[in-house]
Amino acid sequence: MEGISFESLFELLENNQIRELRRQLMEWNVVDVAEFMDEVDDDKLLLIFRILPKSLAAEVFAYLDPDKQAKIVDSINDAELSYLVEELYVDDAVDFLEEVPAGVVRRVLANAKPDTRDVINRFLKYPEDSAGSVMTNEMVEFHSRFTVAQAIAQLRRTGVDKETIYTCYVIDDSRHLIGVLPLRHLLLAADDAVIEDIMTEQEQIISVNTHDDREEVADIARKYDLLSVPVVDNEQRLVGIITIDDIVDIIEEENTEDFEKMALMVPSDSEYLKTGVFTHARSRIVWLMILMVSATFTGQIITGFEDQLTHFVGLTACIPMLMDTGGNAGNQTSTLIIRGLALGQITITDYFKVLFKEIRVALLCGLALAALNFGRMWALNAMGIQPVGSITTVLVVCTAMLCAVVVAKCIGCTLPIVAKAIHLDPALMAGPMITTIVDGLSLLIYFALARVLLM
Amino acid sequence: MEGISFESLFELLENNQIRELRRQLMEWNVVDVAEFMDEVDDDKLLLIFRILPKSLAAEVFAYLDPDKQAKIVDSINDAELSYLVEELYVDDAVDFLEEVPAGVVRRVLANAKPDTRDVINRFLKYPEDSAGSVMTNEMVEFHSRFTVAQAIAQLRRTGVDKETIYTCYVIDDSRHLIGVLPLRHLLLAADDAVIEDIMTEQEQIISVNTHDDREEVADIARKYDLLSVPVVDNEQRLVGIITIDDIVDIIEEENTEDFEKMALMVPSDSEYLKTGVFTHARSRIVWLMILMVSATFTGQIITGFEDQLTHFVGLTACIPMLMDTGGNAGNQTSTLIIRGLALGQITITDYFKVLFKEIRVALLCGLALAALNFGRMWALNAMGIQPVGSITTVLVVCTAMLCAVVVAKCIGCTLPIVAKAIHLDPALMAGPMITTIVDGLSLLIYFALARVLLM
Repeated sequence: MEGISFESLFELLENNQIRELRRQLMEWNVVDVAEFMDEVDDDKLLLIFRILPKSLAAEVFAYLDPDKQAKIVDSINDAELSYLVEELYVDDAVDFLEEVPAGVVRRVLANAKPDTRDVINRFLKYPEDSAGSVMTNEMVEFHSRFTVAQAIAQLRRTGVDKETIYTCYVIDDSRHLIGVLPLRHLLLAADDAVIEDIMTEQEQIISVNTHDDREEVADIARKYDLLSVPVVDNEQRLVGIITIDDIVDIIEEENTEDFEKMALMVPSDSEYLKTGVFTHARSRIVWLMILMVSATFTGQIITGFEDQLTHFVGLTACIPMLMDTGGNAGNQTSTLIIRGLALGQITITDYFKVLFKEIRVALLCGLALAALNFGRMWALNAMGIQPVGSITTVLVVCTAMLCAVVVAKCIGCTLPIVAKAIHLDPALMAGPMITTIVDGLSLLIYFALARVLLM
Repeated sequence: MEGISFESLFELLENNQIRELRRQLMEWNVVDVAEFMDEVDDDKLLLIFRILPKSLAAEVFAYLDPDKQAKIVDSINDAELSYLVEELYVDDAVDFLEEVPAGVVRRVLANAKPDTRDVINRFLKYPEDSAGSVMTNEMVEFHSRFTVAQAIAQLRRTGVDKETIYTCYVIDDSRHLIGVLPLRHLLLAADDAVIEDIMTEQEQIISVNTHDDREEVADIARKYDLLSVPVVDNEQRLVGIITIDDIVDIIEEENTEDFEKMALMVPSDSEYLKTGVFTHARSRIVWLMILMVSATFTGQIITGFEDQLTHFVGLTACIPMLMDTGGNAGNQTSTLIIRGLALGQITITDYFKVLFKEIRVALLCGLALAALNFGRMWALNAMGIQPVGSITTVLVVCTAMLCAVVVAKCIGCTLPIVAKAIHLDPALMAGPMITTIVDGLSLLIYFALARVLLM
C-alpha cells in the first residue's frame, strides 16, 4: 500500500478546477479526503466542504481535526449546521463538541433537533474517559419476542443509520439487555424462529457500565474479540455501544499515555505537532523539577563522602556508570511489569513469583556485569587510561555494581505492583520514584562498601 | 464487568462432578473457558477438552497457551486431531504451529486433509511478522458478475465457515481483487442488482501485500477503521484477509515491543511469567553491558577533571543531578518523537519544525530548572547542608543545567528522526544512544564551564 500524494489535488485547487477536484475527491476514501482537508488553507476549507455531496461531507467532518471542525461550524449557516449535526453519529458529535470552544457548542446544540440535543447533552455529561463518554446510541436492538423475519425487516428499514449492524442487542420490555445476536446467526436462522431462542444468553453477555473506565472497555474487547461492547446503566438497561474502531483508538491513546507517563510527562490528548510550546513545557517541567530537587539526596550522600572520594583515585569516575547501570536495570524491570499489569498478564497476587524471578535475573545480569567491569577496569588501569589505586577499589566497584542491579530490579518490580495494589497508576508512580530511589541506594551501597573495604 | 472466579469450577473438577462442570462451561464465553483450562493441571486438561462439544473444543483450543495446545495434540488420537485441524481457522492453526515443536507440527500436518495441509504449509512459509503469516483464507469472495440474490445464497451456504462475513471481497475471473462490499450494502441492495455495480471500486480499495510488515497492516486498519484488511499477492490476486481481532493483537504486540526496546531490552514475543530466567537475563544483558562499557567515556571525562573537582567543593555533588536531569529531558523528547513517528503523526520532513519546537521548550524548561536550582543551592548552602565554595560555582551548575537540557532535547528529537530516515528502528536506536551521548556532553559542558569561570 503506497502513500497518497495530495499534489495533484492542490494543483486543481490552485487552478480553480473545482469540478475535477470534486470528481477526484469522491473517488477517495473519506479518511484521505479528511487528511487532505486538514492540510488545506482555511479559506479553501469551506469551499471543499461545500462541493462534497452533503452526506459525504458529514462523514468527512467526523475525521477532521477539531480546529478545522470549529472553523467549518463557524462558517456554515444554521440550516447546514442542523443537517450536519443530524448526520453525524452521536459519538463523533460528542468527540467534536468536547474539543471546541463553548460558543461553538452552544450554536451546534441550538441547531440540533430536540431529540438529538437531549442525547448529546446527556452524553456530554459522562465523566471524561468513561465508557459513557465514548459510546454511541446508534445500535441495532430487537425485542426478545421478535421473529427472525421481523428482525430482518426492521434491520433493512433502520440499518442504514446505525453505526454497526453486525452485532445486534436483545432487550426486554424495560430495555434491559438480555441477549446478544451476531448478524451472521440472524441471517442463518429460520424466518419464523424467535429472537430469544437463537440469541446468546445473559450469562455470556459481556457488557460495561456507563461509568466504567474506557481502558476497561478496551481490555474487554481485546480479550473477547468483540466488534462492539454494549454499555448499560446501573439498572442494566442498554444505553449505547462502543464500536471496535473507537476501541482501537482508545488502545492507542492509552498506550501513548503510558509511554508519556513512563517518560516523566503529564499525558496529553493532543498530537505533538499540534501542541503549543508552553503546553509542551508545562507537561514536562513538573517531573523534571521534582526529580531535580530530589537529587538533593544523592548530592548529600556524595557531600558526606567527599573527603574520602579525594583519597581514592577512580571512585568518583565510576559514579555515572554505577548510577546509569542501576537506572537502566530498574527501568527494564519496571517497564516489563507495568506492561504486564496493563495487559492483564501479571496480577498483584503474582508478586512473589515476580520478585523471585527478578532476583535470579538480577544475579545473572549483575554477575556478568561485575565480571565484565572487572576486566574493563583492569585493562584501563593497565593501559594507564583510568588509573585505580588498588585492586580493592576495583572489587568495591564490582560488588557495588552487583548490589545496585539486584536492588534496582527488586524496586523495579515492587513499586508498580504496590502502586496497582493501592489503586494508583503503575506507570505514573513507578518511573519517577525508581530513578530517585535506585540512584540513592546505589550510591549508599557504593560508599558503604568503600568505607568498609578501603579504610 | 467483574472478574470471573474459577473457584467453583475447580471444586467441581476436584469432586469429579463432570456433568455439572460441562454444563457450566458451556454457558461460558470460550475465552474464559480457555483461561480456565490454562490454569488446570495437565492431567485434567485432556478430560476437560474431551467433555466439551467437539466444535466448542476446537474454538477454545485456538485461545489456549501454546504449551497447553501441544499437550492436547500429544494426547489425542489421529481422528480427533484431524477433526481439530479442519475446524480451526487457518490463521489460528498457523499461529499454533509456529509455536510448537517440529514433531507436533509434522503430526498435525500428517492428519490434515491435503487441501488444508497445502494451505497451512503455504502460510507457514511467509516471513515472520509479514501480512501473509497472520492472514486467514476464510473470507467471503464473490465474482463481480454475481447478482445480489446469488451472493446472498452463497453467503447462507458457506458463511458459517468464514472467519468474517461482514466485509465481502469481489474478484474477477483471474481472482484479482477488484472490489469490496460491506455486508450491510449487500443486504440493503435489490435482489437483481449486480455485484460490480454496488461494490466499492478499485480506486478506493485498501489492501496489503503478503510480504508487507504486519505493523503496516495495523496502521492501515487503524487509519481507515477497517474490520478486515485484504491481502493480495504480487499479481494483485486476493489470497487472504486479516481480521480486526488479530489486528488488535498486533497493535498491542507492537506497542509492547516498543516499550521493551525503549527500556533497553531485546523484544520478546512471550509473556513475562511464561519466560524463563535465562531468557529474561539474555534479553536484558546486552544493552546493560554495552552501556556500562560506553560509560568509560564519562569516567574518563571525570578522571581528566579529578584534580580540579577536589578544589571546588560542591561540584562533584551536582554530577548525579545534572546527568539525571539531562537524561530525563532527553528521554521525554525521544519518547514523544518515537511515538509520533510510530503513529504517523510526525514524518521525517517535520524535522526542522520539531527541532525548533524542542529548542524553545528546552529553553523554557531549562531556565525554570536553572532558576529553581539557584534557589535550592543557595538555600542548602545557607543552611549549611551542602556548602558551595562561591556564587560562581552555583552559576556554573545552573548554566550547565540549562545547556544540558537544551542539548538533551536536541539530541532526543534528532536521533529518532535520523534513525527513521536511514530506515533503522527509532525505538531501538534512540534510547540507548541518547543516555550515553547526553551524559557525556552534559559533563563536558559542566567541566568546560567550571574551567572557564572558576579558574
